[in-house]
Amino acid sequence: MRIAIDAMGGDNAPSALVAGALKAAQDWTDTHIVLVGDTAVIEPLLAGGKPANLEIRHAAEKIEADEEPVKAIRRKKDSSMVVAGRLVREGEADGMISAGNTGALMTAGLLVVGRIEGIERPALAPMMPTRDDLGVLALDLGANMDAKPEHLLQYALMGSIYREKVHGMKNPRVGLLNVGTEARKGNELTKAAFDLIEQSSLNFVGNVEARDVLDRNCDILICDGFVGNILLKTMEGTAGFLMKTLKEEFSRSLLTKIAAAIMMPGLKGLRRKMDYKEHGAAPLLGVNGLIMKCHGSSDAMAVRNAVRQARIALQGNLIPSITSEISGK
Amino acid sequence: MRIAIDAMGGDNAPSALVAGALKAAQDWTDTHIVLVGDTAVIEPLLAGGKPANLEIRHAAEKIEADEEPVKAIRRKKDSSMVVAGRLVREGEADGMISAGNTGALMTAGLLVVGRIEGIERPALAPMMPTRDDLGVLALDLGANMDAKPEHLLQYALMGSIYREKVHGMKNPRVGLLNVGTEARKGNELTKAAFDLIEQSSLNFVGNVEARDVLDRNCDILICDGFVGNILLKTMEGTAGFLMKTLKEEFSRSLLTKIAAAIMMPGLKGLRRKMDYKEHGAAPLLGVNGLIMKCHGSSDAMAVRNAVRQARIALQGNLIPSITSEISGK
Repeated sequence: MRIAIDAMGGDNAPSALVAGALKAAQDWTDTHIVLVGDTAVIEPLLAGGKPANLEIRHAAEKIEADEEPVKAIRRKKDSSMVVAGRLVREGEADGMISAGNTGALMTAGLLVVGRIEGIERPALAPMMPTRDDLGVLALDLGANMDAKPEHLLQYALMGSIYREKVHGMKNPRVGLLNVGTEARKGNELTKAAFDLIEQSSLNFVGNVEARDVLDRNCDILICDGFVGNILLKTMEGTAGFLMKTLKEEFSRSLLTKIAAAIMMPGLKGLRRKMDYKEHGAAPLLGVNGLIMKCHGSSDAMAVRNAVRQARIALQGNLIPSITSEISGK
Repeated sequence: MRIAIDAMGGDNAPSALVAGALKAAQDWTDTHIVLVGDTAVIEPLLAGGKPANLEIRHAAEKIEADEEPVKAIRRKKDSSMVVAGRLVREGEADGMISAGNTGALMTAGLLVVGRIEGIERPALAPMMPTRDDLGVLALDLGANMDAKPEHLLQYALMGSIYREKVHGMKNPRVGLLNVGTEARKGNELTKAAFDLIEQSSLNFVGNVEARDVLDRNCDILICDGFVGNILLKTMEGTAGFLMKTLKEEFSRSLLTKIAAAIMMPGLKGLRRKMDYKEHGAAPLLGVNGLIMKCHGSSDAMAVRNAVRQARIALQGNLIPSITSEISGK
């Protein structure tokens, strides 16, 4: 198994990417890691020793976090992200991992790796936090701002396969994000998508409401990329606001500081739970190769864990499963 | 000034509605309150005395919380909600207040009171909580699931007038809810709406992100009703989840219970802030008369406060201002 890692993308690149790759190569000696990036920068970071299953593939350029995605991918043919994508397309790697510019990575998925035949729109599918620790796979969370009903059906299909293959879930429940749980609710898009998903063989639990997602009212949450982005950022914003206010209240006086010390262990877990960076890398589903997006602020352990996720997806034949499911439709 | 109150709608109807109406009639003797509902039920609740500026208008039927809105409004011609709407349409009342079925009230706005000429879609505009206490007026939060760019422009216009007339804000800032703050972001709807609002004379601050709403990054937040509903419910769900988890952590042991006792005063304010029921009644903007929607669980004080809001809106000539602004376009 060969996994390419974009060494130059992310807030902590290249050090966190190199350290994470090293850790992964040590943990899984059956996996070959290809670190893609500037050799002159990467090599010194591997001065402590380079395992046999870790190689460097030189790429002279890198894509910055604020670059316009399509332009960046088209112009920077020798960027670490594009080179990693090319390794996947040409079969030199089975999958790639990047913590870089999300828009650029989605564009690389489309333009460099390419779509699975029959998939109209790939979707980004991160895990959302839930009260229990199983999470909800939500898609699309930003790859396509506008979606048609058939796209939502394809998201549901791909998400179901991912949860089966990567998370070992049997018959995962598909929920359609909507403004109420009744069948005829919503806008034109969700009404039409409801009918399509209902007619499929998926385990469709119908419409689900945003406020119940934290209770894991489904295992796969379907929405268009615009709504998904609003959902995720509202959750982040609300949790961030409450955590900040709580911190202010805890630091108000000596007494409240004592209260804070008492509460700290219990609340740490809550903060971690609400931090979606903690919930692993997000697959870009629908491209003809495995692409995992790590959060921009990923540290070495997050990168190492993304390799673990990629290994499970590859061992579970995620991409061939999606391909055969789609072509069978 | 005459304000009709639907006495039969809401979780605490009729008692909270009657008590709130009574309080309002006592507080503002220049305002005539028309309580609309079943006389046989309302009269005993006024056994303590009925001020001269409070009258009962009999309506034999009532619309239940779970009734299908359009059917309910069409069939129950003698329901308290429809009768109150008719009073507004016929000029017997300057405005109406209801805590009943939201969908039915929006339908009554359309079918009984009627739209302002030139307004294509009325919008429901509640206040969203913010870190400071000024809040953000958000619209549309559920009146229309699908919107066109021109509708979003009209929401922006109506919201601006409301904040000027009712909240006394000078030059309130209009923000378009979007997935990023850059100008060309979003889906087809928001891209087109951006151009329209930018060309208007409104104080448009551009695209705003969901996670910044709590920091009051604008005074009027524009979105379609589907997205608005997702925003509101995600905020509710996330805050509810965090509050519940906090409560669990606080009740874990004797020590944490002591911490809870220390923190309680500070946290009460936070809970109230996040509870959008506390943020007053929401106007249904775009109908040809003042309609205020109180939260279903409103108590007497909330009803009384809705009358206060309605008074300010009427004194500020809200409806004529919207009408002249729209006809001037």
